[in-house]
Amino acid sequence: MVGPAMTSTQPTRHLGLDLGGTNIKWAVVEHADETWNALDRGQVPTPAENGPDAVVKALADTGLAAIAAWPGVGSVGIGVPGLYDPATGATRFLVNVPGEWDGRPVAGPVSAALGRPAFLVNDARAFGLAELRLGAGRGASSMVGLTLGTGVGGVIAIDGRVHQGHDGTAGEVGHQTIDPDGPWCGCGNRGCLEAYARADQIAHACGTTTAEEAVRRARQGDARALAGLRQVGRYLGIGIANLVTLISPDRVVIGGGVAAAGDLLLDPIRAELRERVRTTALDLVELVLAELGYWAGAIGAAIHGAERAEVAADQPGRGAWQAR
Amino acid sequence: MVGPAMTSTQPTRHLGLDLGGTNIKWAVVEHADETWNALDRGQVPTPAENGPDAVVKALADTGLAAIAAWPGVGSVGIGVPGLYDPATGATRFLVNVPGEWDGRPVAGPVSAALGRPAFLVNDARAFGLAELRLGAGRGASSMVGLTLGTGVGGVIAIDGRVHQGHDGTAGEVGHQTIDPDGPWCGCGNRGCLEAYARADQIAHACGTTTAEEAVRRARQGDARALAGLRQVGRYLGIGIANLVTLISPDRVVIGGGVAAAGDLLLDPIRAELRERVRTTALDLVELVLAELGYWAGAIGAAIHGAERAEVAADQPGRGAWQAR
Repeated sequence: MVGPAMTSTQPTRHLGLDLGGTNIKWAVVEHADETWNALDRGQVPTPAENGPDAVVKALADTGLAAIAAWPGVGSVGIGVPGLYDPATGATRFLVNVPGEWDGRPVAGPVSAALGRPAFLVNDARAFGLAELRLGAGRGASSMVGLTLGTGVGGVIAIDGRVHQGHDGTAGEVGHQTIDPDGPWCGCGNRGCLEAYARADQIAHACGTTTAEEAVRRARQGDARALAGLRQVGRYLGIGIANLVTLISPDRVVIGGGVAAAGDLLLDPIRAELRERVRTTALDLVELVLAELGYWAGAIGAAIHGAERAEVAADQPGRGAWQAR
Repeated sequence: MVGPAMTSTQPTRHLGLDLGGTNIKWAVVEHADETWNALDRGQVPTPAENGPDAVVKALADTGLAAIAAWPGVGSVGIGVPGLYDPATGATRFLVNVPGEWDGRPVAGPVSAALGRPAFLVNDARAFGLAELRLGAGRGASSMVGLTLGTGVGGVIAIDGRVHQGHDGTAGEVGHQTIDPDGPWCGCGNRGCLEAYARADQIAHACGTTTAEEAVRRARQGDARALAGLRQVGRYLGIGIANLVTLISPDRVVIGGGVAAAGDLLLDPIRAELRERVRTTALDLVELVLAELGYWAGAIGAAIHGAERAEVAADQPGRGAWQAR
């Protein structure tokens, strides 16, 4: 079963599910011509403590409720916080969702329950796709995105498309090495950008308990929090300078909770870019905050499912959840 | 004046010029269906000491001789060792070619002299395009390339196309920061990959006068040269690990003179990749040596000109050398 062709001017509807450690978010988006609109969204708690079977069932149940409320949904995208196998629709490794996820089918069971083609996507790539199509990256040909949270997610878009690589892992901006002998990262490498700029490190640098508190204190003028954000901004600036040098993007989009710091974070990033970017013209690179906030992942998952379903419709020999 | 449509099965011919500090190389390539072939190539000394006007005239004269020998050439690509403005066809900054090159028209005068559309391209991107179309990158969807020489040139190809960015500088792999407080690079940044892996640093690490000598001695088993190549390979591995993490390419292609070291250089790179790449599956990423050698730049410039001319033919309102 396949959605209508997306080149039609007839609007089409698409469901996105965003699996997080705390909540499953959903969004229904509508697509007509070049325009994407979010029609509705909501969330339910993730039954993480009940294990992967319960989580997959909750994804399906959440999707069923959404498509009952919004007739005409043609495809499903599922954002997952980690690694997956695009060829089988199974997860490989998830962050912050307990249980054994390696090799667990997710796209297949959700597709079967909903009677629509379903496709997995990494949650940071979903964030980036949403910003690219209807957020801060709108109109950019090439875009780099970072989402600052428990980890540092990333996305690279080239010629208006999110670049997935052969296994959906391209764009892992947070796992570039910015100091070969730097601190250990959760991934097993040393000196990853994430090891300096994930939420707990931001809190640590700012002398606070959480990154949210760090941002709040910095906005109130707290000297230690301000210095901490400058330090984190410097590290982010090193990583972003690499991306600007490698990709020469039209737009760099910063999202996630800490983006609420605004210029307190962007100014030290800009300073580092001026120090380090020597090849491309920096005035052609816009550094902006993300626009879509909390629902970006669900919206982006919906768009991913829509775009993958369109590809799958052109390749009828392949199972829907096997299309990349 | 524009070459025939490249989707035709009728072979088309294209000229490439590769401006270097020592020689101007040229190549004529033939294109039919999906296949590119190099028909002929040659070189003349670059009259660098006579200044930019003489160099531009030498480019034009070399091109005229080549198209006289090979009738049917429809387009011209010109590889330059540095930065240029794709909108005007003027250079911005060249490495190892003396004189004032900022704002100097190059594509325009060569196009006028040859009566064919002419397009500039960075020489490392030309190397990468040649390897992608008829060398070690053939068949790859995404490819990363490094060319090790006086500097460290680079290229990133996505979905079968070399990504240029808005000013032709995307892919500057050698100017990513791999150590924020590392040695100064010629570009003005600190800790660039190039600052560790350019030819004179390789010679320094190996205790030799030149990088060629370093490779020769290492192949003879000289302990210091072997240790130096391991050290340089480690730095290259850090930079390539970043590229693999960000791009998740099918193929990584290493070119330039030092690539003659083969596994003496590739093995330490592979070891570093195993340490640092934790997201994408490394067994999907092939690390290979470049195939086209000395003439890759001229061949790639020819292909670039052909592909740009095809785009320009679809946009007849734009001047040939203004197409990007």
